[in-house]
Amino acid sequence: MTLIEKLNNEDRFAQSIGVRLTDIREGYARAELTVEERHLNGAGVCQGGALFTLADLAFAAVANARGLITLGISNTITFVRSAQLGDRLTAECTEAADHQRLPYCDIRITNQDGAVIACMTGLAYRLNKEFGFDRLM
Amino acid sequence: MTLIEKLNNEDRFAQSIGVRLTDIREGYARAELTVEERHLNGAGVCQGGALFTLADLAFAAVANARGLITLGISNTITFVRSAQLGDRLTAECTEAADHQRLPYCDIRITNQDGAVIACMTGLAYRLNKEFGFDRLM
Amino acid sequence: MTLIEKLNNEDRFAQSIGVRLTDIREGYARAELTVEERHLNGAGVCQGGALFTLADLAFAAVANARGLITLGISNTITFVRSAQLGDRLTAECTEAADHQRLPYCDIRITNQDGAVIACMTGLAYRLNKEFGFDRLM
Amino acid sequence: MTLIEKLNNEDRFAQSIGVRLTDIREGYARAELTVEERHLNGAGVCQGGALFTLADLAFAAVANARGLITLGISNTITFVRSAQLGDRLTAECTEAADHQRLPYCDIRITNQDGAVIACMTGLAYRLNKEFGFDRLM
Repeated sequence: MTLIEKLNNEDRFAQSIGVRLTDIREGYARAELTVEERHLNGAGVCQGGALFTLADLAFAAVANARGLITLGISNTITFVRSAQLGDRLTAECTEAADHQRLPYCDIRITNQDGAVIACMTGLAYRLNKEFGFDRLM
Repeated sequence: MTLIEKLNNEDRFAQSIGVRLTDIREGYARAELTVEERHLNGAGVCQGGALFTLADLAFAAVANARGLITLGISNTITFVRSAQLGDRLTAECTEAADHQRLPYCDIRITNQDGAVIACMTGLAYRLNKEFGFDRLM
Repeated sequence: MTLIEKLNNEDRFAQSIGVRLTDIREGYARAELTVEERHLNGAGVCQGGALFTLADLAFAAVANARGLITLGISNTITFVRSAQLGDRLTAECTEAADHQRLPYCDIRITNQDGAVIACMTGLAYRLNKEFGFDRLM
Repeated sequence: MTLIEKLNNEDRFAQSIGVRLTDIREGYARAELTVEERHLNGAGVCQGGALFTLADLAFAAVANARGLITLGISNTITFVRSAQLGDRLTAECTEAADHQRLPYCDIRITNQDGAVIACMTGLAYRLNKEFGFDRLM
């Protein structure tokens, strides 16, 4: 099983809310979400937690891609523009600094028009313990 | 309808994943979540997005409590300890700095034993527009 | 030499800009700065970097107080109110979550009237290496 | 007077610690600092506050370049690698999301070998008030 399959199958929370990984390469991953009624908050726009989960799945894919278990320890997310019902959102994560123990990533969420919805940074902590997947892709 | 009812009913995302507001007072709110199978990530612990949503609902309640629509603009969340299947989690939000336009809050998630699971800070932006609820409580 | 003396003497940057530690106890530290002409930015208020350094010295004192070298890895600082020429600023740091490897702290800067100027959070990484000071106080 | 001259002359704190703006273009700015003895912390490496100030000056230049006064409201900085005595550091800031009211920037500090020292994000708040400089460059 590849990491992309593993994360899509085993991350039950991401799966249950409709977030899917759609690409993963060395130092890069992409996840997608289409905004449905169930993702809306009290103001009628996509809830921040759904956006966070979308960004976080792309982050987890990049952070874990080296085969060692890597835990997310801190994220800063800034909400630039509301995401509306029906928007097709994409989160793209790139590794900004490949620190052996504390990898640091940038994640950006855009909508179907390329407008930036949210920007996130993620810092992770890499354990000396192997992740159970056979190969990256 | 009170704000607590409004947020519990109208925040469809929080509702759909099982997060509930359970207390709201001036400058304070509490939300709760019990970790179920559907909240787990690929490592078998509670996904960061579920924790974020829990903290965010408490934050939204405090930020909006003055009757003006207030948008979350930036959050930093640090994951201190994993939350396990069955854990009963509580997020408590307090207003750390009551800036008229840019309120700033601290949110802490603890488990049933009082151990800290995650710490979040939240910065919001208050619009000059009224929120549709009758009274705070 | 105590940690408070060590940090005040050896942190040449903090010393050169006029920041001083004035208290340190288990899980708590306080640093002080009086805003002078040399601390002002182009808008005529205290520069964010001077505020950051003030908060950071209190953070370093708390993070290192257990006798193991501890490196600051990430900080989020939010500027709530401008600090003016002549203001006497105090930064107080408390340990919000005592994680063995990744301690997490809250730091708050207030002025002489108790008004909040800035709020910072700090995440550090503790090495398995002793710090060269004899005792905490 | 151009903005680059203005910021270099008028930001007394940045000037007093040896930080200089060296380039500014639409949506981009660069600042530089050479690490001297006076910038070191108790561990003998460049203090985080000096790095923050370096990044912050580049951020201020980008955020203010549209001619309206823009206040930094929140920054997250992650320290990836220590900067040593004698290192020639460069901070480059780019505007990641050009929100009219709340511009959001990425700032990266690298050393003379191109190694990443620190990554910062910055969120600002733009007032409806003009900044006193004649033209951008």
